[in-house]
Amino acid sequence: MREHVIVSSTTDSETTARELAAQAVEARLGACAQIVGPILSVYRWDGEVQADPEWRVEIKTAADRVAPLVELIKEQHNYEVPEIIATPIEGGSSEYLEWLVSETRAG
Amino acid sequence: MREHVIVSSTTDSETTARELAAQAVEARLGACAQIVGPILSVYRWDGEVQADPEWRVEIKTAADRVAPLVELIKEQHNYEVPEIIATPIEGGSSEYLEWLVSETRAG
Amino acid sequence: MREHVIVSSTTDSETTARELAAQAVEARLGACAQIVGPILSVYRWDGEVQADPEWRVEIKTAADRVAPLVELIKEQHNYEVPEIIATPIEGGSSEYLEWLVSETRAG
Repeated sequence: MREHVIVSSTTDSETTARELAAQAVEARLGACAQIVGPILSVYRWDGEVQADPEWRVEIKTAADRVAPLVELIKEQHNYEVPEIIATPIEGGSSEYLEWLVSETRAG
Repeated sequence: MREHVIVSSTTDSETTARELAAQAVEARLGACAQIVGPILSVYRWDGEVQADPEWRVEIKTAADRVAPLVELIKEQHNYEVPEIIATPIEGGSSEYLEWLVSETRAG
Repeated sequence: MREHVIVSSTTDSETTARELAAQAVEARLGACAQIVGPILSVYRWDGEVQADPEWRVEIKTAADRVAPLVELIKEQHNYEVPEIIATPIEGGSSEYLEWLVSETRAG
């Protein structure tokens, strides 16, 4: 796992997406979050391809916060098996990446 | 290549984006797809910087499905050299990642 | 660092996002860019969780262009410590990835 990570999930309402984002930032399990949507989710259900609107929450965090953040999302999410994926950050502005780590420490 | 991957492409209409997403899921070359857009694509053409609306298709899949999925997109896409990129997933919800692999096996 | 990279930043207006995208492509520090937004940014400010609309610029480039591209964004950005992150591309269409490298060489 890299030092800096994006943890993403999707939900069926903008309200739930905003709540997940705020809970992650309040718990210092994420430095910041972005909500993208509505997006269109395409998936197989009962043998048929379906499409539904969703909102994606993307939370930027430090690697040592990923496991508790995934647990928080599982607990708070209204889906049984929500999409929760971690994708790596491998560089960028060093000042921003330092801020990202410091925001996820106790205030 | 990681075990779980996001394969993304962009198209000039939402209809084409939906068709690519549905074809990938129907062929079990992707577990699910999300369509983001309209987004604004900025690029150089004939010496000038241009900007056009596009829609992005993001398909989540297993690593062993990436090569045939890239071929499917190339065949179905209406561009000569479409953007097709693979980006890694390095963690997340283990239940979700297992679902992602099982959805891309024969039903 | 992989051979192909996505460098992303966020700004408070679509105009600034378009300017950043055009400057990167004009300077051949990016092959192409996409603007996604408005998105909702959620962050902690002065002890409170805040939410503001932003636009994200995503620039696809070659690994050897990442450092000067990050510097260009820092110089042109209207934030003191803007989000600038680099995320890896690990595969996709070889024709597209070759185009991405050739677009970032001198014309």
